[in-house]
Amino acid sequence: MSEELRNLIVETQEAFRSDPAEAQATFESASSLGEGFRSEVAMRDHRLVVDEPESLGGTDSGPNPVELILAALGTCQEITYRAYAAALGIPLEHVAVTLEGDIDLRGFFAVDESVRPGYQKLRGTVRVVSSADEETLAKLQQAVNAHCPVLDIVSNPVPVELTLEKSESASAEAAE
Amino acid sequence: MSEELRNLIVETQEAFRSDPAEAQATFESASSLGEGFRSEVAMRDHRLVVDEPESLGGTDSGPNPVELILAALGTCQEITYRAYAAALGIPLEHVAVTLEGDIDLRGFFAVDESVRPGYQKLRGTVRVVSSADEETLAKLQQAVNAHCPVLDIVSNPVPVELTLEKSESASAEAAE
Repeated sequence: MSEELRNLIVETQEAFRSDPAEAQATFESASSLGEGFRSEVAMRDHRLVVDEPESLGGTDSGPNPVELILAALGTCQEITYRAYAAALGIPLEHVAVTLEGDIDLRGFFAVDESVRPGYQKLRGTVRVVSSADEETLAKLQQAVNAHCPVLDIVSNPVPVELTLEKSESASAEAAE
Repeated sequence: MSEELRNLIVETQEAFRSDPAEAQATFESASSLGEGFRSEVAMRDHRLVVDEPESLGGTDSGPNPVELILAALGTCQEITYRAYAAALGIPLEHVAVTLEGDIDLRGFFAVDESVRPGYQKLRGTVRVVSSADEETLAKLQQAVNAHCPVLDIVSNPVPVELTLEKSESASAEAAE
Protein backbone atom coordinates (compact mmCIF):
# COMPACT_ATOMS: atom_id res chain seq x y z
CA MET A 1 0.00 0.00 0.00
CA SER A 2 2.60 2.49 1.14
CA GLU A 3 4.85 2.17 -1.94
CA GLU A 4 1.86 2.18 -4.27
CA LEU A 5 0.44 5.23 -2.51
CA ARG A 6 3.76 7.02 -2.68
CA ASN A 7 3.88 6.47 -6.45
CA LEU A 8 0.31 7.73 -6.82
CA ILE A 9 1.17 10.89 -4.87
CA VAL A 10 4.31 11.57 -6.89
CA GLU A 11 2.45 11.04 -10.19
CA THR A 12 -0.39 13.32 -9.07
CA GLN A 13 2.06 16.02 -8.00
CA GLU A 14 3.74 15.88 -11.40
CA ALA A 15 0.41 16.06 -13.22
CA PHE A 16 -0.71 19.09 -11.15
CA ARG A 17 2.64 20.80 -11.60
CA SER A 18 2.49 20.52 -15.38
CA ASP A 19 -1.22 21.39 -15.57
CA PRO A 20 -2.64 23.28 -12.56
CA ALA A 21 -6.12 23.21 -14.18
CA GLU A 22 -6.21 19.47 -13.46
CA ALA A 23 -5.97 20.23 -9.74
CA GLN A 24 -9.22 22.23 -9.65
CA ALA A 25 -11.94 20.12 -8.00
CA THR A 26 -15.53 20.92 -7.08
CA PHE A 27 -17.40 18.90 -4.47
CA GLU A 28 -21.18 18.99 -4.06
CA SER A 29 -24.01 18.14 -1.70
CA ALA A 30 -27.81 18.29 -1.93
CA SER A 31 -30.01 17.96 1.13
CA SER A 32 -33.71 18.24 1.84
CA LEU A 33 -35.36 18.61 5.25
CA GLY A 34 -38.14 16.14 6.05
CA GLU A 35 -40.12 15.97 9.29
CA GLY A 36 -38.76 18.01 12.20
CA PHE A 37 -34.99 18.35 12.00
CA ARG A 38 -34.39 15.17 9.99
CA SER A 39 -32.62 15.77 6.69
CA GLU A 40 -31.38 13.49 3.94
CA VAL A 41 -28.22 14.54 2.19
CA ALA A 42 -26.62 13.22 -0.99
CA MET A 43 -22.93 13.56 -1.83
CA ARG A 44 -22.52 11.92 -5.25
CA ASP A 45 -23.87 8.38 -4.71
CA HIS A 46 -23.48 8.53 -0.95
CA ARG A 47 -26.49 9.27 1.21
CA LEU A 48 -26.70 10.16 4.85
CA VAL A 49 -29.43 10.93 7.37
CA VAL A 50 -28.75 13.89 9.65
CA ASP A 51 -30.91 14.74 12.66
CA GLU A 52 -30.72 16.33 16.08
CA PRO A 53 -30.73 14.34 19.33
CA GLU A 54 -33.99 14.43 21.30
CA SER A 55 -32.47 16.89 23.77
CA LEU A 56 -32.22 19.38 20.88
CA GLY A 57 -35.68 18.77 19.45
CA GLY A 58 -34.93 15.98 16.96
CA THR A 59 -35.59 12.24 16.74
CA ASP A 60 -31.90 11.20 16.79
CA SER A 61 -32.10 9.29 13.50
CA GLY A 62 -28.53 10.30 12.60
CA PRO A 63 -25.58 12.43 13.71
CA ASN A 64 -26.17 16.16 13.89
CA PRO A 65 -24.38 18.75 11.72
CA VAL A 66 -21.78 19.76 14.30
CA GLU A 67 -20.90 16.10 14.94
CA LEU A 68 -20.30 15.76 11.18
CA ILE A 69 -17.72 18.54 11.47
CA LEU A 70 -15.81 16.38 14.00
CA ALA A 71 -16.17 13.31 11.75
CA ALA A 72 -14.83 15.31 8.81
CA LEU A 73 -11.84 16.60 10.77
CA GLY A 74 -10.94 13.26 12.36
CA THR A 75 -11.07 11.29 9.12
CA CYS A 76 -9.29 14.04 7.15
CA GLN A 77 -6.47 13.98 9.70
CA GLU A 78 -6.20 10.18 9.36
CA ILE A 79 -6.17 10.25 5.57
CA THR A 80 -3.59 13.04 5.57
CA TYR A 81 -1.41 11.10 8.04
CA ARG A 82 -1.49 8.04 5.78
CA ALA A 83 -0.77 10.07 2.64
CA TYR A 84 2.09 12.10 4.14
CA ALA A 85 3.62 9.09 5.89
CA ALA A 86 3.75 7.38 2.49
CA ALA A 87 5.05 10.48 0.72
CA LEU A 88 7.79 11.09 3.30
CA GLY A 89 8.68 7.40 3.69
CA ILE A 90 7.72 7.34 7.39
CA PRO A 91 6.40 4.00 8.74
CA LEU A 92 2.77 4.25 9.94
CA GLU A 93 0.94 1.09 10.94
CA HIS A 94 -2.22 2.66 12.23
CA VAL A 95 -3.85 6.00 12.97
CA ALA A 96 -7.00 6.83 14.95
CA VAL A 97 -8.43 10.16 16.11
CA THR A 98 -10.73 11.23 18.93
CA LEU A 99 -12.15 14.74 18.97
CA GLU A 100 -14.35 16.84 21.17
CA GLY A 101 -15.78 20.28 20.62
CA ASP A 102 -17.41 22.74 22.99
CA ILE A 103 -20.47 24.75 22.03
CA ASP A 104 -22.24 27.31 24.17
CA LEU A 105 -25.82 26.79 22.97
CA ARG A 106 -26.79 30.32 24.05
CA GLY A 107 -25.31 31.31 20.66
CA PHE A 108 -27.63 29.20 18.51
CA PHE A 109 -30.63 30.02 20.71
CA ALA A 110 -29.95 33.79 20.51
CA VAL A 111 -29.87 34.09 24.30
CA ASP A 112 -26.62 36.07 24.18
CA GLU A 113 -25.62 37.69 20.89
CA SER A 114 -21.99 37.93 22.05
CA VAL A 115 -21.74 34.10 22.09
CA ARG A 116 -20.73 32.51 18.78
CA PRO A 117 -23.11 29.78 17.55
CA GLY A 118 -20.31 27.44 16.42
CA TYR A 119 -17.56 25.62 18.29
CA GLN A 120 -15.63 27.67 20.84
CA LYS A 121 -12.78 25.18 20.69
CA LEU A 122 -11.88 21.75 19.34
CA ARG A 123 -9.51 19.36 21.12
CA GLY A 124 -8.26 16.09 19.73
CA THR A 125 -5.84 13.24 20.13
CA VAL A 126 -4.21 11.54 17.14
CA ARG A 127 -2.95 8.08 18.13
CA VAL A 128 -0.43 6.49 15.80
CA VAL A 129 1.25 3.11 15.77
CA SER A 130 4.66 3.59 14.16
CA SER A 131 8.25 2.45 14.49
CA ALA A 132 9.43 6.00 13.72
CA ASP A 133 11.10 8.05 16.47
CA GLU A 134 9.47 11.07 18.13
CA GLU A 135 11.34 13.62 16.05
CA THR A 136 10.25 11.98 12.81
CA LEU A 137 6.65 11.79 14.01
CA ALA A 138 6.73 15.47 14.99
CA LYS A 139 7.87 16.24 11.43
CA LEU A 140 5.00 14.12 10.10
CA GLN A 141 2.50 15.95 12.33
CA GLN A 142 3.76 19.30 11.08
CA ALA A 143 3.42 18.23 7.42
CA VAL A 144 -0.07 16.84 8.06
CA ASN A 145 -1.34 19.92 9.86
CA ALA A 146 -0.01 22.20 7.12
CA HIS A 147 -1.87 20.25 4.40
CA CYS A 148 -5.02 18.77 6.00
CA PRO A 149 -7.98 20.27 4.07
CA VAL A 150 -10.54 20.09 6.89
CA LEU A 151 -8.13 21.44 9.51
CA ASP A 152 -7.65 24.44 7.19
CA ILE A 153 -11.43 24.82 6.64
CA VAL A 154 -12.14 24.80 10.39
CA SER A 155 -9.12 26.85 11.49
CA ASN A 156 -9.30 29.55 8.83
CA PRO A 157 -12.16 31.53 7.28
CA VAL A 158 -13.78 30.13 4.14
CA PRO A 159 -15.90 32.59 2.11
CA VAL A 160 -19.49 31.31 1.85
CA GLU A 161 -22.06 32.74 -0.57
CA LEU A 162 -25.65 31.60 0.08
CA THR A 163 -28.58 32.56 -2.11
CA LEU A 164 -32.17 32.26 -0.89
CA GLU A 165 -34.77 31.23 -3.47
CA LYS A 166 -38.49 30.94 -3.02
CA SER A 167 -39.99 27.91 -4.77
CA GLU A 168 -43.62 27.16 -5.58
CA SER A 169 -43.49 23.54 -4.45
CA ALA A 170 -41.20 21.16 -2.63
CA SER A 171 -41.07 18.61 -5.44
CA ALA A 172 -38.86 20.66 -7.74
CA GLU A 173 -36.22 21.17 -5.10
CA ALA A 174 -35.85 17.86 -3.33
CA ALA A 175 -32.36 16.40 -3.27
CA GLU A 176 -32.26 14.32 -6.40
CA MET B 1 -44.84 20.97 14.76
CA SER B 2 -44.26 24.70 14.38
CA GLU B 3 -46.15 25.73 17.54
CA GLU B 4 -44.62 22.86 19.51
CA LEU B 5 -41.16 23.79 18.26
CA ARG B 6 -41.71 27.44 19.13
CA ASN B 7 -42.60 26.47 22.70
CA LEU B 8 -39.52 24.24 22.94
CA ILE B 9 -37.31 27.10 21.77
CA VAL B 10 -38.84 29.61 24.21
CA GLU B 11 -38.49 27.15 27.11
CA THR B 12 -34.88 26.38 26.18
CA GLN B 13 -34.06 30.09 25.95
CA GLU B 14 -35.53 30.68 29.41
CA ALA B 15 -33.59 27.74 30.86
CA PHE B 16 -30.29 28.98 29.35
CA ARG B 17 -30.97 32.54 30.48
CA SER B 18 -31.49 31.48 34.08
CA ASP B 19 -28.61 28.97 34.06
CA PRO B 20 -25.94 29.52 31.37
CA ALA B 21 -24.11 26.38 32.58
CA GLU B 22 -26.96 24.32 31.11
CA ALA B 23 -26.11 25.68 27.66
CA GLN B 24 -22.58 24.23 27.64
CA ALA B 25 -22.48 21.21 25.33
CA THR B 26 -19.62 18.98 24.23
CA PHE B 27 -19.85 16.86 21.09
CA GLU B 28 -17.49 13.97 20.33
CA SER B 29 -16.25 11.70 17.56
CA ALA B 30 -13.90 8.72 17.42
CA SER B 31 -12.54 7.38 14.15
CA SER B 32 -10.08 4.72 13.12
CA LEU B 33 -8.44 4.30 9.72
CA GLY B 34 -8.68 0.85 8.16
CA GLU B 35 -7.32 -0.17 4.75
CA GLY B 36 -6.18 2.63 2.48
CA PHE B 37 -8.16 5.82 3.12
CA ARG B 38 -11.26 4.09 4.49
CA SER B 39 -12.17 5.17 8.01
CA GLU B 40 -15.01 4.32 10.36
CA VAL B 41 -16.22 7.08 12.60
CA ALA B 42 -18.57 6.97 15.59
CA MET B 43 -20.57 9.94 16.88
CA ARG B 44 -22.46 8.65 19.92
CA ASP B 45 -24.44 5.67 18.53
CA HIS B 46 -24.17 6.83 14.94
CA ARG B 47 -21.58 5.28 12.66
CA LEU B 48 -20.36 6.37 9.28
CA VAL B 49 -17.86 5.13 6.70
CA VAL B 50 -15.66 7.79 5.15
CA ASP B 51 -13.41 7.17 2.17
CA GLU B 52 -11.89 8.91 -0.82
CA PRO B 53 -13.14 8.42 -4.38
CA GLU B 54 -10.95 6.28 -6.62
CA SER B 55 -9.63 9.39 -8.38
CA LEU B 56 -8.07 10.41 -5.04
CA GLY B 57 -6.66 7.00 -4.13
CA GLY B 58 -9.61 5.52 -2.20
CA THR B 59 -12.20 2.82 -2.80
CA ASP B 60 -15.20 5.19 -2.67
CA SER B 61 -16.97 3.30 0.13
CA GLY B 62 -18.37 6.55 1.57
CA PRO B 63 -18.30 10.33 1.22
CA ASN B 64 -14.94 12.00 1.75
CA PRO B 65 -14.16 14.45 4.57
CA VAL B 66 -14.64 17.64 2.53
CA GLU B 67 -18.00 16.39 1.25
CA LEU B 68 -19.02 15.92 4.90
CA ILE B 69 -18.32 19.61 5.46
CA LEU B 70 -20.90 20.43 2.76
CA ALA B 71 -23.37 17.94 4.29
CA ALA B 72 -22.87 19.55 7.69
CA LEU B 73 -23.41 23.07 6.36
CA GLY B 74 -26.45 22.23 4.23
CA THR B 75 -28.28 20.35 6.97
CA CYS B 76 -27.35 22.92 9.62
CA GLN B 77 -28.80 25.67 7.43
CA GLU B 78 -32.03 23.67 7.01
CA ILE B 79 -32.39 22.96 10.73
CA THR B 80 -31.68 26.59 11.57
CA TYR B 81 -34.28 27.75 8.98
CA ARG B 82 -36.91 25.49 10.55
CA ALA B 83 -36.04 26.57 14.11
CA TYR B 84 -35.96 30.31 13.35
CA ALA B 85 -39.09 30.20 11.20
CA ALA B 86 -40.89 28.63 14.18
CA ALA B 87 -39.36 31.07 16.66
CA LEU B 88 -40.24 34.13 14.54
CA GLY B 89 -43.67 32.82 13.52
CA ILE B 90 -42.77 32.77 9.80
CA PRO B 91 -44.51 30.09 7.69
CA LEU B 92 -42.04 27.59 6.19
CA GLU B 93 -43.38 24.55 4.38
CA HIS B 94 -40.11 23.17 3.12
CA VAL B 95 -36.39 23.90 2.88
CA ALA B 96 -33.65 22.24 0.81
CA VAL B 97 -30.03 23.22 0.21
CA THR B 98 -27.53 22.56 -2.56
CA LEU B 99 -23.88 23.42 -2.03
CA GLU B 100 -20.67 23.32 -3.98
CA GLY B 101 -17.13 24.00 -2.91
CA ASP B 102 -13.96 24.57 -4.88
CA ILE B 103 -10.64 23.07 -3.86
CA ASP B 104 -7.32 23.54 -5.60
CA LEU B 105 -5.74 20.14 -4.92
CA ARG B 106 -2.26 21.59 -5.35
CA GLY B 107 -2.67 22.64 -1.70
CA PHE B 108 -3.21 19.15 -0.26
CA PHE B 109 -0.54 17.68 -2.55
CA ALA B 110 2.04 20.32 -1.53
CA VAL B 111 2.62 21.31 -5.14
CA ASP B 112 2.27 25.01 -4.31
CA GLU B 113 2.63 26.07 -0.67
CA SER B 114 0.77 29.33 -1.36
CA VAL B 115 -2.42 27.38 -2.16
CA ARG B 116 -4.62 26.61 0.86
CA PRO B 117 -5.52 22.90 1.25
CA GLY B 118 -9.17 23.59 2.17
CA TYR B 119 -12.06 25.13 0.26
CA GLN B 120 -11.31 28.34 -1.61
CA LYS B 121 -14.99 29.19 -1.68
CA LEU B 122 -18.40 27.68 -0.97
CA ARG B 123 -21.54 28.59 -2.92
CA GLY B 124 -25.02 27.45 -2.12
CA THR B 125 -28.70 27.85 -2.80
CA VAL B 126 -31.34 27.59 -0.09
CA ARG B 127 -34.74 26.83 -1.60
CA VAL B 128 -37.75 27.47 0.59
CA VAL B 129 -41.46 26.91 0.11
CA SER B 130 -43.25 29.57 2.12
CA SER B 131 -46.25 31.86 1.95
CA ALA B 132 -44.20 34.67 3.53
CA ASP B 133 -43.27 37.72 1.45
CA GLU B 134 -39.73 38.45 0.26
CA GLU B 135 -39.01 40.98 3.00
CA THR B 136 -40.00 38.52 5.72
CA LEU B 137 -37.91 35.77 4.13
CA ALA B 138 -34.91 38.13 3.93
CA LYS B 139 -35.33 38.76 7.67
CA LEU B 140 -35.46 35.00 8.25
CA GLN B 141 -32.30 34.49 6.19
CA GLN B 142 -30.50 37.14 8.22
CA ALA B 143 -31.52 35.53 11.53
CA VAL B 144 -30.49 32.07 10.26
CA ASN B 145 -27.09 33.17 8.99
CA ALA B 146 -26.35 34.97 12.27
CA HIS B 147 -27.08 31.82 14.34
CA CYS B 148 -26.22 28.79 12.15
CA PRO B 149 -23.47 26.88 14.02
CA VAL B 150 -21.79 25.30 10.98
CA LEU B 151 -21.87 28.54 8.95
CA ASP B 152 -20.00 30.14 11.86
CA ILE B 153 -17.53 27.22 12.09
CA VAL B 154 -16.74 27.41 8.36
CA SER B 155 -16.78 31.21 8.00
CA ASN B 156 -14.79 32.07 11.13
CA PRO B 157 -11.67 30.59 12.74
CA VAL B 158 -12.15 27.85 15.35
CA PRO B 159 -9.13 27.14 17.60
CA VAL B 160 -8.06 23.51 17.22
CA GLU B 161 -5.64 21.78 19.60
CA LEU B 162 -4.35 18.41 18.39
CA THR B 163 -2.09 16.15 20.42
CA LEU B 164 -0.08 13.37 18.79
CA GLU B 165 0.39 10.19 20.82
CA LYS B 166 2.40 7.12 19.94
CA SER B 167 0.68 3.86 20.87
CA GLU B 168 2.15 0.40 21.11
CA SER B 169 -0.71 -1.35 19.32
CA ALA B 170 -3.77 -0.46 17.27
CA SER B 171 -6.20 -2.37 19.50
CA ALA B 172 -6.11 0.11 22.37
CA GLU B 173 -7.00 3.04 20.16
CA ALA B 174 -9.71 1.79 17.85
CA ALA B 175 -12.97 3.73 17.87
CA GLU B 176 -15.02 1.97 20.53
